[in-house]
Formats: sequence, structure tokens, C-alpha cells
Amino acid sequence: MDQGVTIALDAMGGDHAPHSVIEGAALALRRHPTVRFLLFGDDNRIRHLLDLHPALKARATVVHTVDVVASDAKPSVALRQGVNSSMRLAIDAVKDGRAAGVVSSGNTGALLAMAKMVLKTLPGINRPALASVLPTLKHSCVMLDAGANIDCDARTLCQFAVMGDGFARSVLGITSPSIALLNVGTEEIKGHDTLKAAYHALKTAKNLNFQGFCEGTDIGRGNVDVVITDGFTGNITLKTLEGTAHFVATSLKRALQSSALGKLGFLIASSALAPFREKMDPRQHNGAGFIGLNGITVKSHGGADGIAFAHAIDVAFDLISHNVNAKILEELERAGLDLAFDETTKPASTEEPSKA
Amino acid sequence: MDQGVTIALDAMGGDHAPHSVIEGAALALRRHPTVRFLLFGDDNRIRHLLDLHPALKARATVVHTVDVVASDAKPSVALRQGVNSSMRLAIDAVKDGRAAGVVSSGNTGALLAMAKMVLKTLPGINRPALASVLPTLKHSCVMLDAGANIDCDARTLCQFAVMGDGFARSVLGITSPSIALLNVGTEEIKGHDTLKAAYHALKTAKNLNFQGFCEGTDIGRGNVDVVITDGFTGNITLKTLEGTAHFVATSLKRALQSSALGKLGFLIASSALAPFREKMDPRQHNGAGFIGLNGITVKSHGGADGIAFAHAIDVAFDLISHNVNAKILEELERAGLDLAFDETTKPASTEEPSKA
Repeated sequence: MDQGVTIALDAMGGDHAPHSVIEGAALALRRHPTVRFLLFGDDNRIRHLLDLHPALKARATVVHTVDVVASDAKPSVALRQGVNSSMRLAIDAVKDGRAAGVVSSGNTGALLAMAKMVLKTLPGINRPALASVLPTLKHSCVMLDAGANIDCDARTLCQFAVMGDGFARSVLGITSPSIALLNVGTEEIKGHDTLKAAYHALKTAKNLNFQGFCEGTDIGRGNVDVVITDGFTGNITLKTLEGTAHFVATSLKRALQSSALGKLGFLIASSALAPFREKMDPRQHNGAGFIGLNGITVKSHGGADGIAFAHAIDVAFDLISHNVNAKILEELERAGLDLAFDETTKPASTEEPSKA
Repeated sequence: MDQGVTIALDAMGGDHAPHSVIEGAALALRRHPTVRFLLFGDDNRIRHLLDLHPALKARATVVHTVDVVASDAKPSVALRQGVNSSMRLAIDAVKDGRAAGVVSSGNTGALLAMAKMVLKTLPGINRPALASVLPTLKHSCVMLDAGANIDCDARTLCQFAVMGDGFARSVLGITSPSIALLNVGTEEIKGHDTLKAAYHALKTAKNLNFQGFCEGTDIGRGNVDVVITDGFTGNITLKTLEGTAHFVATSLKRALQSSALGKLGFLIASSALAPFREKMDPRQHNGAGFIGLNGITVKSHGGADGIAFAHAIDVAFDLISHNVNAKILEELERAGLDLAFDETTKPASTEEPSKA
């Protein structure tokens, strides 16, 4: 399955680039030894770093770029001024078929805007969504949209449901993934009109294991495989989840360090705790795909180090090798979601410029 | 400060009532020995339980009621049919001045609707908000609205900010509480129009330590004292937080139980971990006040046991003894928030019936 996959990397995006990118690529290569990389960025700095990683050097091609998208650039400005940036040229490589996917730790809004403009959405999909894979007490679930679209109408939420279904079937390997809309309660009468409209549309969808509404508590418990929400709620949910995990883990650490017995107990339990610590390491969960685009695009945290960036590459590799887009198109056809929506539901709007 | 505080308890609300209510009152009485209780519910069942708690029996008056608000009753139905319910009569006791506050584990929507109708909002406040106190790595913060209002306009969010400020100053004892609007990023351009309008209004407010926008990660880190959001986002945030804490704690437990060394280490570290386990116990965080009403109203989890219910009584006691409403009115005057809002921002709507 590894045969011939080439991934384009924005070597200049993120707080610790290009160091973290090269380090990450070297780590990811050990897990996927047949991958090839296209590295977009400052040739001089990258070659210097590649000398430290001969195995990677043998499977990487450097494409020299001068411009970098600033981390605080507005998406519209990045679109206009970033045509020769490392980020843009890496996306272009996916468009041209030189790479099967792209990974960047750079400016999220710019990455989304560029990827939308260059790659376009899949037929039948209006907007890409950020899909975030989350650990739960059972297995992993996927939540979308984790932040690409501030407002979403009912039709968009329904498309996200199909995209999430395709994602869970292919990447997570779940046969009939359970899907639910994130809401303030599970009763049909809960929530605002957009959610209710999406609920009723999804109930009629074919081939989708739609469960209705779920609540924030259902995520960690693993009660649902695909969590559907707008990008505003999804982004706040994702960050609350990260913040709470950090809060609990730090509180635990402080408690164990508060006494000699705590330290001793921790030392003895250390090997048993290793998988827990790995599971709680946010770097293990780095990398969220912009799903619904005609090409795999993965956003890595801006502050990612090499270990975290390697995980974002893993995500791209998974999305490519499981052929998520083919699965989404297949599920879209099966779901038969070309439904008559109440057109009075408020129109969608995003922070990003439209594909003008 | 304890002198003369009487709290009305809906003895029939919640999954484990009246047992959990009597048990909780007995526990709370140990912490606040001068409190008196008015217990609304089935006289026969309550007296039977009171016999087990002589100290409580001496400080409790039972008011016999026959009707109970069903946990799945629509608020509008509860308003019409629940005039003789334990919940309604307990609220009436606050209105009449027989009690300084009310605590119920019953139907949230019904409690809110009844409390709004009977007690009315404070002058200058349009809507009550559910205020949830959350543990953080620094000290506690308060988030509102945690679920009372699905949609909130900018003016309502600004009032919540003042209410949260008064709450943090009085109940949390913070001199100049930092206040932020929950958003998908901290930059001024982030989020939807309602948030931006609230942002600009709050920037001009006097006497408020308004910090701008915050993100989900800022909650657990304790970066802000008062987190302001609409009830939809707030409810999902709160439940995500609860779900994640449960997920991390359960994952930890499983890891420690996975091997003999894990179990031994846990045993040794047990005393050091006691404060951590207490901090993570959701029962310790039970009880959220409907703030902004002309009378203290505290909602306890429907599934609360005695320990959890006692904490909800603690919340009511804190709100009463710190005179949160006087503080809110004082801060409302100081903030001078009678600002010209763009009246084109979408009108507020709730799930609950209006105060007709």
C-alpha cells in the first residue's frame, strides 16, 4: 500500500520550521519507508538539515521557495501575495499530481483558502471541513467541522455527515459508523433550527447510521463514531477537550509530585502509565485533514515539533492510502442526500474568502 | 454570616429524590450549621428519611406537596400544570421571602421557566444565565451561559459579562476578575458578528477587566476568570469538559489497573492522589446558579446523589451569603453598558417560553 506515495511538505510553515518539518519527515519515513517527500522551502536551510538525516535525504526532493505566508496574514492577503510561497507551491504540487497530499503547520486560514482555491471541493460538496480524530474510551472518533466554517447551514452539516461517514469507514476502518449531530441534549426538540433541519434530513438519508443528537459528554465516552457540528462549536469543543486533558494531566502530575509517597508510587507505576502518557500526549493527536477537497490537505499545529509533525504526516498518509475521497464520493451517492431543504434556513458564511 | 439563611429544597426533583435531597441537606448542614431548610415534597416519605438525620430534622420544615414536575415535561406544560408541584412551591417560597434561595435536581427547562416567571429578572437584566464554576490550573473560573439560552444577542452577552463579573467578585472573591468572550481565536477579526458586536461594546464598558476573546484551551489553564458565551456553546463546552475529564480519569485508572506494578504504585501514591481524586469528582462541581434572577435559584444534576446535592446547596449558600445579586446590580451601574447596539444583530430567542 505504501508504494509510490509522495507527500508535499510546507517546510517553512509553523513556529519551529523548517527544523520540525525535516525532523518530522525523518520520523514518519521510519514508519512509512516507501514514502517520498517534496520539501518546499529555503533550499539552503533544508539541505543543511537533510545532511543530518541521510535516509530522508535519499527520498526527498527539495523545491526552493523564497516566500513564506506569515502566521498572522489574512487569508485574502495570503491568496493574493502568497502565489510563490512554500505553502502555495506545496498545494500546487497536489493539484499537478506531483504529490498525493500536502501537510503544513502554517497559517490555518491561508491554508484553507489556498487549498479551496487550488484544489476545489469534491463534486457534490460545497465546503471542506476540518476533520479531527479524537481518542475516546472505546476507539477513536472523528469530529467535523473542527474549525473551517464558522457558520454552517443544514445542507452543509448533512454533507459533513457523509464526509465523516466516508472518513470513518476508510481511515478508522469502522463498518457502519454511528453518526450524530452535536447538540445541547439528545431530545428531538433541542437546539436551534439549523440543527433540527439537518436532523430531519439525515433521518431520511440512506446507508447512514444516523443516531440523532449527541452531547459533549458522548465524545470522550466513545458513544458515537462521527460527531457533526459547525466549525465554531467544533473548534471550541476541540480546544476545550485539549485544555481539559492538559488540566487533568497537570493536576495529576502535581498531586504525584506533592509528596515522597506520590513520587515513589509514580516511579513504580511508571511502566504501567507509559501507554496512558502516550495517549495523553497532544503531539500524538496532531494533524487534522481538510476533508471534502479534491486532494489531501492536512493542517498541523503551528507549534508542532518533529514528533507532532510526524503524526500530521501519518494523517496525510492514512487519508491517501485509505483513499478517503473515493469513499466519500461513493457514500454521497448512496446517501441520496439531494433533499429539499427549507431554503429559509440562514445562508452559510465563512471567514475565508469564497472561491472567486 | 450563616445567621438566618433559609434554603428551599425541591425534595422531589431528580433521579434519586427524595433520598438524595435529604442526605444532601444533612451533609450541607454539617458545613453550614445555622442554615434552615424548607423541604417541599411528600410529607410521609420525607419524615421517614428525616428520622435518620435528627440534626437536620431540628432545622427543617416540611411543606407537603403532591405534584411533581416530570423530568421530561416541556417547560410550557410544567408552567401550566405544575402550579402545585414541589418545584414551583419551593420557588414561590423564595418569591415570598420565606427562603433566600432554592435548589432543585428537577427538570432544567421547567426550573428555568418557573423561576423566570415567578422571580423575574433583576432590573437591567433581560435573561438569566446558568453560571457554572469550573476548576482550573490556577483557581476556579465561572462560565456563563452554560445552557439557559440557546441564542444570545450581543446585548445579552454583555449583560452576562457584568453578571459574571459580579459573580466572580462576590462568590469567587476575585478583586478585578478578567473577563473574555469564548471564541475560535483571540484575534479581533475572529468569530461571528454577534461576538464582534459584544467585543466592541465590552471594550467601552467601565470597571470591567475585559480581556477580549479567549479559546477553549484557556479555560483549563485558568487564563481567564469569567468566560462568556451563549448557552448553546456553553452547554457543549461544559459537557465536553465533563466528558474529557471522565475520559482522562478512566484512562488513567485502566492504565494503573493493567499491571501489578501499576496497582502497587497506585496504592503507594494513594494518599498523594486523594486531593486529585476529589478535584476530579464531578459531584464536587455539582450545582449551577441561574444568575440574573430576583432570587437565588440553583440547578443540581438530575442524577445527583447526596454528596452531589450537598454541593449544590453549598452553591446556593455561597450565592446567598455573598449577596451576588447586590454585587451584580452595583457592577451593572458602574459598567455603564447602556450602549447603542446595532439593532440589526439577530434577535434573541430561547427554547423556553417567554415570561407571558
